[in-house]
Amino acid sequence: MFNLRDKTAIVGIGETEYSRNAPVSLLSLELQAATSAIEDVGLSIQDIDGIIPGFMGPTVEDFVTNFGLKDLRYTVTVRLGGASAVASLQSAAMAIASGVAQTVLCVTGWKGCSEGGIVAITEGQALPMMSVTHNFEFPFGALVPVQWYALQAKRHIYEYGTTSRQFGAVAVAMRKHAMLNPKAIMKTPITIEDHQNSRMITVPFRLLDCCLESDGAAAVVVTSAEKARDLKHRPVYIMGVAEGHPDFPNYIPGRAKITELGLKKAAPRALVMAGITINDIDVAEIYDCFTWNVICQLEDLGFCKKGEGGPFVENGRIELGGDLPVNTHGGLLSQAHILGMNHVVEAVAQLRGDAGLAQVKDAEIALVTGYGDLGDGSVVILRR
Amino acid sequence: MFNLRDKTAIVGIGETEYSRNAPVSLLSLELQAATSAIEDVGLSIQDIDGIIPGFMGPTVEDFVTNFGLKDLRYTVTVRLGGASAVASLQSAAMAIASGVAQTVLCVTGWKGCSEGGIVAITEGQALPMMSVTHNFEFPFGALVPVQWYALQAKRHIYEYGTTSRQFGAVAVAMRKHAMLNPKAIMKTPITIEDHQNSRMITVPFRLLDCCLESDGAAAVVVTSAEKARDLKHRPVYIMGVAEGHPDFPNYIPGRAKITELGLKKAAPRALVMAGITINDIDVAEIYDCFTWNVICQLEDLGFCKKGEGGPFVENGRIELGGDLPVNTHGGLLSQAHILGMNHVVEAVAQLRGDAGLAQVKDAEIALVTGYGDLGDGSVVILRR
Repeated sequence: MFNLRDKTAIVGIGETEYSRNAPVSLLSLELQAATSAIEDVGLSIQDIDGIIPGFMGPTVEDFVTNFGLKDLRYTVTVRLGGASAVASLQSAAMAIASGVAQTVLCVTGWKGCSEGGIVAITEGQALPMMSVTHNFEFPFGALVPVQWYALQAKRHIYEYGTTSRQFGAVAVAMRKHAMLNPKAIMKTPITIEDHQNSRMITVPFRLLDCCLESDGAAAVVVTSAEKARDLKHRPVYIMGVAEGHPDFPNYIPGRAKITELGLKKAAPRALVMAGITINDIDVAEIYDCFTWNVICQLEDLGFCKKGEGGPFVENGRIELGGDLPVNTHGGLLSQAHILGMNHVVEAVAQLRGDAGLAQVKDAEIALVTGYGDLGDGSVVILRR
Repeated sequence: MFNLRDKTAIVGIGETEYSRNAPVSLLSLELQAATSAIEDVGLSIQDIDGIIPGFMGPTVEDFVTNFGLKDLRYTVTVRLGGASAVASLQSAAMAIASGVAQTVLCVTGWKGCSEGGIVAITEGQALPMMSVTHNFEFPFGALVPVQWYALQAKRHIYEYGTTSRQFGAVAVAMRKHAMLNPKAIMKTPITIEDHQNSRMITVPFRLLDCCLESDGAAAVVVTSAEKARDLKHRPVYIMGVAEGHPDFPNYIPGRAKITELGLKKAAPRALVMAGITINDIDVAEIYDCFTWNVICQLEDLGFCKKGEGGPFVENGRIELGGDLPVNTHGGLLSQAHILGMNHVVEAVAQLRGDAGLAQVKDAEIALVTGYGDLGDGSVVILRR
């Protein structure tokens, strides 16, 4: 059967500066990241004939108008929260492989700090997928992700004995990596003890379990494998890509297994498409909205069994130099919260050999996940 | 090169009752249309592994939860207003042809009458693509589509001598067709004189130039051509499909040619994919938000030259029995406003030979357009 394996490649990446107080509009940030990605490819702006904008903020009309595009042939929006950036690569690959578009821009940005953060979203209309949560959990004060996911994290602790110090190991690893990255916001070293002493936000999540609220945008450009060979950079091929959805996607307590994510369904499909096993992955960029979510995704991806994610992240295994370097850019926890598009950009940089001090030596295959809403998952496997 | 021609087929259609006061929620309406389409296919609900919901209202999470779906593999949202329903067929075809999903549900609904109509949308956040319009036209009172498109219609009259009586010919044709359709809301016959005597809404649009505001939902199910051959109904193949965007998609006055739509770019691509010429079309379902928009789309599709759409629609040519029957269900003008998904359903019914009193004899090839926002266009060519 026809599949998407190696049909397309990421050929351009772009990022704005990441900060907590960008002095320009979200549209400006996204145009800047997009322009930078297109320049990185070495193509003209008119070569872009597909655009997948983020699920919040600027729309395709904004990009077409500002770029003066003459012949856009494809656009969709992926509305899966933090799973959107990676899932948009699936749509880009489909559009290119089926001849609908040749070169697709995927762009995402967020003024998640200066424009009010997650509360500003959940109070408004931007997350209509939360209807059940709105109706049945908001009245009891469960307003934001840190509260929704706390339920799952507590269950994980209860069932498997996962510890807060293991959560801390994730936070410490991300911070170590951020300190190697000139684009990262957080630069102060932290220890497990700092994590343990940080204030409680929602049991079991402490301050250092939580991702940043930040301002910025990131973008990638995807084209056919054939066209990619003639472009400026070494192509980074999309080997496998998939999305998956948990049972009861809009109501965590309705699920038979509340510590199992949509990613559990997506991962085997992406691996089969890529024709590899999980042990072939050299570097993983895991959507780290909270520390526990990294642990749970490592399990659902198959790096370890369910319940073994806590011990898995200990003793530097997910740090540079460990068995599986995770979030070599610092992640949402310590680089910036660009809804996971920064994870895609970092994976491409790793496979190009352009990751600077955080370079994983000879990285050939990278994996990136997205994590959205109440556990929608997406995963892409990339190779140089 | 790989393309989507004849790779997929519409195998199920479903509609709710169309009314002006549906006593249930939009989610209920959409679930009803979706369930009806799935039953029409003769598959189990668990066979649905892709869902493209409408750009307003219920989200994919609502469908997955209510259907209890275990393994959804693909979802996107097409955010192109009235161009979304037809453009969603492009995404469904891509997903199936590239092996990401096997069977995709596309569903759209609107409580456009009982929940406040178009004003309720444009006042809110549902149309963020309108940012320029919001900032530069809203302050002058141009709040709704009838006002935005009036600008283009007046230009068409000025440049080409198009007349209000020609607009009326469109309204009369749609009403004649609605009177043959048990699902249509409007049942009173009208004449050109009735059109001329109806009250002015925004020059040059009179009341009978305007589509309905109504409540209801419609859905279709798409699968691979191979799988389609084993199902209940005669497959209706997707021969060609494309979307196109005008220059300055969010600001009509910025365009060099304000009477030219995104459809002008999409139509040749869909025809090339289908391997036919425009003269091979037996029946056309044209997005009829206003009468003039039908005239302009017939031109941009190539049924006649630019400026000749007015004379083209006269003398019953677009009525049943004429050279090109248009909107055989009554359209948005006289059946119901289901954002064009009802046009897709009607085209399928025509090609199955199930269109009742409005059946176009021996219809083999149908064309359906979508028209969104300020002129984004989509077109699909279907064959039995």
